[in-house]
Amino acid sequence: MKTDTAMINAFVEGAATLDPSTAELITRRKKLLGPAYRLFYERPVHFVRGEGAWLYDAEGNAYLDAYNNVTSIGHGHPKVVEAVSRQMETLTTNTRYLHDHVLLYADRLLSTMPPEIGHLMFTCTGSEANDLAVRIAESFTGGTGIIVTETAYHGVTQAVARFSPSLGQNVALGVHVRTVPAPDSYRSATGDIAAEFTTHVQAAIDDLRRHGIKPALFICDGIFASDGVFDGPAGFLKGAVKAIHDAGGLYIADEVQSGFGRTGEAMWGFQRHGVLPDLVTMGKPMGNGHPVAGVAGRPEVFAEFGRTARYFNTFGGNAVAAQAAMAVLNVIQSEGLVENAQSVGAYLKDGFRALATRHAAVGDVRGAGMFLGVEIVSNRAAKTADAEKTSRIVNGMREERVLISACAKSANVLKIRPQLTSTRAEADFLLGKLETVLLRQADE
Amino acid sequence: MKTDTAMINAFVEGAATLDPSTAELITRRKKLLGPAYRLFYERPVHFVRGEGAWLYDAEGNAYLDAYNNVTSIGHGHPKVVEAVSRQMETLTTNTRYLHDHVLLYADRLLSTMPPEIGHLMFTCTGSEANDLAVRIAESFTGGTGIIVTETAYHGVTQAVARFSPSLGQNVALGVHVRTVPAPDSYRSATGDIAAEFTTHVQAAIDDLRRHGIKPALFICDGIFASDGVFDGPAGFLKGAVKAIHDAGGLYIADEVQSGFGRTGEAMWGFQRHGVLPDLVTMGKPMGNGHPVAGVAGRPEVFAEFGRTARYFNTFGGNAVAAQAAMAVLNVIQSEGLVENAQSVGAYLKDGFRALATRHAAVGDVRGAGMFLGVEIVSNRAAKTADAEKTSRIVNGMREERVLISACAKSANVLKIRPQLTSTRAEADFLLGKLETVLLRQADE
Repeated sequence: MKTDTAMINAFVEGAATLDPSTAELITRRKKLLGPAYRLFYERPVHFVRGEGAWLYDAEGNAYLDAYNNVTSIGHGHPKVVEAVSRQMETLTTNTRYLHDHVLLYADRLLSTMPPEIGHLMFTCTGSEANDLAVRIAESFTGGTGIIVTETAYHGVTQAVARFSPSLGQNVALGVHVRTVPAPDSYRSATGDIAAEFTTHVQAAIDDLRRHGIKPALFICDGIFASDGVFDGPAGFLKGAVKAIHDAGGLYIADEVQSGFGRTGEAMWGFQRHGVLPDLVTMGKPMGNGHPVAGVAGRPEVFAEFGRTARYFNTFGGNAVAAQAAMAVLNVIQSEGLVENAQSVGAYLKDGFRALATRHAAVGDVRGAGMFLGVEIVSNRAAKTADAEKTSRIVNGMREERVLISACAKSANVLKIRPQLTSTRAEADFLLGKLETVLLRQADE
Repeated sequence: MKTDTAMINAFVEGAATLDPSTAELITRRKKLLGPAYRLFYERPVHFVRGEGAWLYDAEGNAYLDAYNNVTSIGHGHPKVVEAVSRQMETLTTNTRYLHDHVLLYADRLLSTMPPEIGHLMFTCTGSEANDLAVRIAESFTGGTGIIVTETAYHGVTQAVARFSPSLGQNVALGVHVRTVPAPDSYRSATGDIAAEFTTHVQAAIDDLRRHGIKPALFICDGIFASDGVFDGPAGFLKGAVKAIHDAGGLYIADEVQSGFGRTGEAMWGFQRHGVLPDLVTMGKPMGNGHPVAGVAGRPEVFAEFGRTARYFNTFGGNAVAAQAAMAVLNVIQSEGLVENAQSVGAYLKDGFRALATRHAAVGDVRGAGMFLGVEIVSNRAAKTADAEKTSRIVNGMREERVLISACAKSANVLKIRPQLTSTRAEADFLLGKLETVLLRQADE
């Protein structure tokens, strides 16, 4: 099997036979968009329509979307479409003029966070949010050192790519960046994740200082999404947060993936750990597909940045972005989607655990709410990561028309993220298809 | 008069008396969004609706928008609203799946450029486009040195802010950044702008090398927007482009402000100079308010970046962004807006020149198409910049309900950018109001 060593679940030319129309689209794409884009799957999918939890290809086949965490209240949600259309017709102006929408939304969004988090700034993308958070953290701390987990992804601006090790060996980490092992509950030597993780973060702080670099921040997402989906035990982040604070640095909660109810137990992933971030970054599902993202945080952290370096983002926090985001928040709250993520997520997790009793390839089941990880191994006792089988399962699921992907340092954890609106029936559909694919793998 | 030394035309608390509802909005804004945001004008404006070239405040007063270069085909253009609504309802997926829209658009957009420009990559914002362009330029050249004009603005990511001197003294330039004086046709010592500018760029290249820094790129926009709107003579960029090429660096045309017909003579600002960029960045008006931006360029420049560092931008080039951008391009081409920018822009420029014969404060009139600059001086013979009077004119125009702003190193150039759709009647309205304000200034 041909694979792209730099990206999990990337399409690799020649790995599978493609139908002529797919092959032609890929040729045109390479010609027009160039060599830096990557598609998913051995046989990429061409979608033409989405509705709720389902995507439809050009032949009208329905795919259950258990991966895309942008449209988390469902593809084409009418309330978001209506809010965006109405506002685009009315006014699109930016934050250099006064408009109500951005304030109404900031007030509502901040009310979902601990009371210490008092300001919200707007960007367009999660990458821009993390990039802005770094600028703010540097101005507040006077430091530049950054600590991340070893397979973390935080974004693609130049500054953020330098602390996104999951972009692969060819994208150099910054000289001011240190990585720590993910809080791997499956392979922990001591079983004390909290103590292990705190020790690693402290060692990274010490190493930064040894090199004359003042720590600015420790950043992680609430579910360690790219590292392999590590959910617990709840509270294990406390020691790491205390360590960075003691070193004069900030704790930044990257909620671009784990925010807006995704983890089921609360609106924000960090809340599962009972810690208070200095800055919280957010994006992807914030506008259910409309580009909107942001940085929230404690007011004192913004003071120096605001005094010296004004911020303007042309589209960030414009009237349309604020309305799209408000519609999403309304739907999440009025339809009880955090609770649904919790209950259907728990149901799915139980289902994966039941599969584990029947399939030796399932080494571990993790996650919270609608962010789940299923670790695939070739030997359960030795916990041997099996990236090849993981890839076959992901592609097998795509052939069964269920969209998932994979993650982790060893590329052997199924990354499963159904829409927040997904039902038990859809969970059953996914579980059934996964069992079919696991059985087929076992036969091969 | 109280002013914000770091930003031209920024609202400063206490500079003017505000009505209670404006004051209350500003208080809420500061509480919710924090200290880093800046408003325009001594008395900020609260808009609630836009249509065509006009914005309306909460009392229903109409303002002629001769500043906002995002909604350049007019506020709330129905074709863009319709394209966005329809596509949001249908599908919003990203570039990890195949979809037609992004390819159809890339093909159309590239057809507006010289044939050597063969690829188009998508981002959400102009800042992200310039940030990506730097990453591509570094991978292609193996260098890091950057040359910009001394009051340039290219964006707000950490990497791009480091070569955006117009952000002010408090935002440090990178150690790998060199600035060159703007091509100031008004104050040129020799009158040979081309030779002067080439000499400055060559000196910057030499200085980078003297410090052991390999040049990566020279970047400028086609109209030197923040430097003071310098339009000519056409072709003066050729020497600077040859110098950076001879040094192994790239020439990046930042068309975020000067692109999409803004300069009237062509679709792209660089075309006025008869030069071929290695990379072209674009944004603001590309989606008429919907967030979409991109980097086009010569295919060989993308090769190394594509090989080593894949690129994915969640919202960049999604199906909605592609449809919004396609609607804008259709309107620009089918309604002849480049030609309109050229003819109404020339009419306006003639009008400003006529004002100059009657008002000693007008030292120089510059610009191309719908991107015009009017330089305000206190002494014509000495060409003494008058930032105070410039600010009074900008705020006077706001009181007359015409939106313009100012730019340049000495903050004394009126920056005037009507919509591409603006009519001669709207140009007359603007000219009439400017004369009223100039007469009032002369009396004070």
